[in-house]
Amino acid sequence: MNTSVFDHPWLGGLFGDTETAAIWSPESQLQHMLAFEAAWSRALGACGVFDAAQAENAASAIEQADVPPSALAAGTGSDGVPVPALVEMLRRIAPAEAVHKGATSQDVIDTALAMTLRETTALFLARLDALMAAMTALERRFGENRLTGRTRMQAAVPITVGNRLLSWRLPLDDHVARLKALRPRVEKVQIGGAAGNRSALGDKADVVVADVAERLGLQPTQKAWHAMRDGIGEYAAVLSLISGTLGKMGQDIALMAQQGVDEIALSGGGGSSAMPHKSNPVLAELLVTLARFNATQLSGLHQALVHEQERSGAAWSLEWMILPQMALATGRGLGAAIDLCGKVERMGSD
Amino acid sequence: MNTSVFDHPWLGGLFGDTETAAIWSPESQLQHMLAFEAAWSRALGACGVFDAAQAENAASAIEQADVPPSALAAGTGSDGVPVPALVEMLRRIAPAEAVHKGATSQDVIDTALAMTLRETTALFLARLDALMAAMTALERRFGENRLTGRTRMQAAVPITVGNRLLSWRLPLDDHVARLKALRPRVEKVQIGGAAGNRSALGDKADVVVADVAERLGLQPTQKAWHAMRDGIGEYAAVLSLISGTLGKMGQDIALMAQQGVDEIALSGGGGSSAMPHKSNPVLAELLVTLARFNATQLSGLHQALVHEQERSGAAWSLEWMILPQMALATGRGLGAAIDLCGKVERMGSD
Amino acid sequence: MNTSVFDHPWLGGLFGDTETAAIWSPESQLQHMLAFEAAWSRALGACGVFDAAQAENAASAIEQADVPPSALAAGTGSDGVPVPALVEMLRRIAPAEAVHKGATSQDVIDTALAMTLRETTALFLARLDALMAAMTALERRFGENRLTGRTRMQAAVPITVGNRLLSWRLPLDDHVARLKALRPRVEKVQIGGAAGNRSALGDKADVVVADVAERLGLQPTQKAWHAMRDGIGEYAAVLSLISGTLGKMGQDIALMAQQGVDEIALSGGGGSSAMPHKSNPVLAELLVTLARFNATQLSGLHQALVHEQERSGAAWSLEWMILPQMALATGRGLGAAIDLCGKVERMGSD
Amino acid sequence: MNTSVFDHPWLGGLFGDTETAAIWSPESQLQHMLAFEAAWSRALGACGVFDAAQAENAASAIEQADVPPSALAAGTGSDGVPVPALVEMLRRIAPAEAVHKGATSQDVIDTALAMTLRETTALFLARLDALMAAMTALERRFGENRLTGRTRMQAAVPITVGNRLLSWRLPLDDHVARLKALRPRVEKVQIGGAAGNRSALGDKADVVVADVAERLGLQPTQKAWHAMRDGIGEYAAVLSLISGTLGKMGQDIALMAQQGVDEIALSGGGGSSAMPHKSNPVLAELLVTLARFNATQLSGLHQALVHEQERSGAAWSLEWMILPQMALATGRGLGAAIDLCGKVERMGSD
Repeated sequence: MNTSVFDHPWLGGLFGDTETAAIWSPESQLQHMLAFEAAWSRALGACGVFDAAQAENAASAIEQADVPPSALAAGTGSDGVPVPALVEMLRRIAPAEAVHKGATSQDVIDTALAMTLRETTALFLARLDALMAAMTALERRFGENRLTGRTRMQAAVPITVGNRLLSWRLPLDDHVARLKALRPRVEKVQIGGAAGNRSALGDKADVVVADVAERLGLQPTQKAWHAMRDGIGEYAAVLSLISGTLGKMGQDIALMAQQGVDEIALSGGGGSSAMPHKSNPVLAELLVTLARFNATQLSGLHQALVHEQERSGAAWSLEWMILPQMALATGRGLGAAIDLCGKVERMGSD
Repeated sequence: MNTSVFDHPWLGGLFGDTETAAIWSPESQLQHMLAFEAAWSRALGACGVFDAAQAENAASAIEQADVPPSALAAGTGSDGVPVPALVEMLRRIAPAEAVHKGATSQDVIDTALAMTLRETTALFLARLDALMAAMTALERRFGENRLTGRTRMQAAVPITVGNRLLSWRLPLDDHVARLKALRPRVEKVQIGGAAGNRSALGDKADVVVADVAERLGLQPTQKAWHAMRDGIGEYAAVLSLISGTLGKMGQDIALMAQQGVDEIALSGGGGSSAMPHKSNPVLAELLVTLARFNATQLSGLHQALVHEQERSGAAWSLEWMILPQMALATGRGLGAAIDLCGKVERMGSD
Repeated sequence: MNTSVFDHPWLGGLFGDTETAAIWSPESQLQHMLAFEAAWSRALGACGVFDAAQAENAASAIEQADVPPSALAAGTGSDGVPVPALVEMLRRIAPAEAVHKGATSQDVIDTALAMTLRETTALFLARLDALMAAMTALERRFGENRLTGRTRMQAAVPITVGNRLLSWRLPLDDHVARLKALRPRVEKVQIGGAAGNRSALGDKADVVVADVAERLGLQPTQKAWHAMRDGIGEYAAVLSLISGTLGKMGQDIALMAQQGVDEIALSGGGGSSAMPHKSNPVLAELLVTLARFNATQLSGLHQALVHEQERSGAAWSLEWMILPQMALATGRGLGAAIDLCGKVERMGSD
Repeated sequence: MNTSVFDHPWLGGLFGDTETAAIWSPESQLQHMLAFEAAWSRALGACGVFDAAQAENAASAIEQADVPPSALAAGTGSDGVPVPALVEMLRRIAPAEAVHKGATSQDVIDTALAMTLRETTALFLARLDALMAAMTALERRFGENRLTGRTRMQAAVPITVGNRLLSWRLPLDDHVARLKALRPRVEKVQIGGAAGNRSALGDKADVVVADVAERLGLQPTQKAWHAMRDGIGEYAAVLSLISGTLGKMGQDIALMAQQGVDEIALSGGGGSSAMPHKSNPVLAELLVTLARFNATQLSGLHQALVHEQERSGAAWSLEWMILPQMALATGRGLGAAIDLCGKVERMGSD
């Protein structure tokens, strides 16, 4: 059973996010990998590298393949990637010569990742909208209420609740802009072949890239990004920026909820095994935790930018350890922030 | 299904470590939590806070409790910790007045953690021994062989294989010393009650602490360490030091395995989907990845040292996100390093 | 004397970058702070909050103020910011009632920072252009040469030098786009007053913000960004992305320069005190160091996103510790990369 | 002029620590480097590698050498280390054949570092003692006062001021133990020669190592630790543990000082340029900042554990960028914590 907080049988009740988890699940990853292989077979069939009929047969067989995820474990252990084992399976159920030829493991996995990021971005954009709406509703309800402005943790001068809420909401607008701007920098096919230069495709390279990209709804690329990971590093940074904004909101709410300060009332706070009367601002604290978690992880993904030569196994697999967690943490943060807005019963004073 | 590389259906074949995972599994965590609750009931029975017979009844019932881990998910989601839900269940199957009274969630979870760390340390000490033995065997086989000493990635002067191997092995000795030295600083009971001062135990506090500690094979403590997390931060640092040493070994092996350098021969290298002839030093790269992962995570655990007041929900749960992963990564690194030593067929030249 | 590698008497010879250092020097920071105060006086004079003539007198006096930077040290030590001490000095040499009124420390310091970032971005854009030109020149000279494509540190299939160079150059294009896109998100005035809501400006707030912004060549803002630090976090991320790309280039060059691999010849490598014959790829290693440095620092700036209430002294001053260093490291990296391109005498083989 | 907060003309008033800065100053580093070279000459004279009289002449000349630090800048820029330039200078003023022969740059710099760490540890042990004494004094004055115990930022049950103070003080005891335990792991000579195996010393190696160690008051070593950096990584971890404990204290004080909470009164709080009435807990916030800074930096030093082959220029120089800052931050934190204890006028309520 799982140790990760995101999948843990009880901690998952706090940290888990069903929708984000579905996007990042092994099953979805595998479907995206198969989608790449099918598109690859068809694209190479369409431009004459493979026999067209065989290519279609291969693609169909690949699409219907029933690959048990755990069947790839042993191969991943020895090869460092699941693709050799997957391709071997596919070649048993489809015309072998029309499967994967000219592609490489990283093409499959990174293109699948691009598809995962596309779904993640779509989900997060929707949640950012929902969160901005929830905050706007709070502004309408409580925006005129009075609040003590606090700087350096000391009372400064009076402000309104609306003033503080604006500092939670405005950055979300920029996060939307950031996510949209970087979509073409990450939602793009990875096609390079053995050493990233598409040499196996000869003069068909551009046609194949464009065709695979269109079939998968991704951007074509001028060159394989096997060893150019800046898009990933940028994506991770935006995830951490989002979590950071939510962490600021969570920290503020936890401070507002202190006895003696009493600037917020929340419904449904967390209970204590020792003090049944307590009402802990659990979701507010969670937002702080997730912000610090993503700020920590971001460093690892930027270490992974130092990607030696045409492909670094070491740097690449560091991404696998970290990026999914950052997405899960960000998704959970957005969900928790929306929930938290819904629990606000009072902010400031009339 | 799981996104974490440690539990992932295929990535688990590369990153997973069965023994470490068992130690950190939710099932084990739950057993440790129940062990604490049973010891608690007995200790309070022994010193007269609880009725002795009831206490024994409670302890027995707790020990035999069949708690489905996922039954604690909803409670964890609302309370931020699984303990209120767990205690509620236990009070249904055991004399309620002799269960958990005077304890708090953090006492249960952190004492369980101390038990987990004890098992982890025992495993890692055994693996460090095995790894030092494997390296000593390499020294015997290849230690006299010639190698080009390389500094700043440039050929310097000739050395022996033994010279380089020593730089992998010597730090392991210090890691053993570090792990042993810090055992009493982490293998200790957490007992504080609601706000950490054991006030619910009155003048029985010292007796109870000593008794619970003895029952669980842990150190007694002068004060609850609810908000003093330096032991955890130190433990994490030692894990990262171990991974760092292994990462240096892995980086060296990956460099030695380069064509043109050819200083090592490994059996069973990883295959490529594009180039079946390749033999990739997958485990060597894995050691680098795990080192960079743990170096990244360590920062987060040290951020979690800033633990406000008597208990920080935010800082504490950041530990839950990170520490298990660091243990899993370290365990896997030790296992992979031992395997890697076994794959060495040649080092240097005669 | 200085311990920082950037200002250190001898390490500065390796890590120092004169132009970036000038932009981030205390003298420049102080000039920008004075520029803000002068613009502030004039803007409030222009809209009638201050007497117009007095405002101009104040602005002129401020612009000509001779403030010894170290005269602000004691005040910074007690107040945590240099501004109260600075304002006190300015009020002695200018009409006191037309100085700083309605502004706050963070307005001064952050607006000065925005001016510093504007200059930094301009410098880095120019350097990115120069670096892309230097790489293009390498492509022209050596692009057709043969190189062994290497994946997972193992020989894969032949590629050209041009293939590898492209993986160094293409991300630079995206970095230019990123820097340009975020300019308006950081080159903006900070105006909020005591608690960030501009209450001291009454209905003149929008006019004052627009006027100060125009005078300083910055963007106006809808709200003070005292506690919304996402622009800073994003800027830091782009710096780290740039360093990461350069680190990949440096790592590649260090690997190419190995004996036995011999894929590059560099002029003027570093000497050794023990081995005068060695020629170490010092600048290539430096690029790796700077990449790992910035990847580390980035985490700290994202921790600083959790900025409590209207202003966090703790999170804000964490930025002061980290952001200047990231800029200096990035500037040095760009300079070193350009130099390194100029030292290339051969890449690959004919 | 300097950008680093530790040396900055005004920020140094907040972040600077004179004693720690003196220990880490370039002048001290240079003196330690010269001390190594003098000890080296004498040790090789004593065992007959150098002519004994010449060795003494060399050592005396080295000790009296007047090396302007900045004279090493150009050499450091080209060689990546200052030692070749330094040795060249020394060979002009001393018998060349009795200078540095058989040593390498890293021997000089790392042994100097070990001397710096010894001084740092001595200073920090003294400060830890002073801080524990200051806290004990607070316990005597206010320990019986009442305080609201707070968990998850919510009022829990009453505790005493003494309870909270204990959670600040107890970890300091462990930090003292940690620092003392690791002294022999870092206060040790670095002697390896060109590729770390002391081959230039032949059968005199052990004698030389012991002699140099004794002359410098350091531990001898079985092998050069050129590429075994676990001692450095451990030292950094202890620095961060110390800062973390102080950060917890600072966070608590900042929370106690809030209006509405009012659990502490501090003399001499920081002023505001906008609100002269405010009294900001500047030093308390500083402790939080320094804790988060060191937690961030620690990650970089653990990345630097991956030290390829006999010496990594890249990983080694990453230490130079980070370790001095961590020491300065820790020293300042200890000083600020002591000062802060002295400013406490009231804690809790009678």
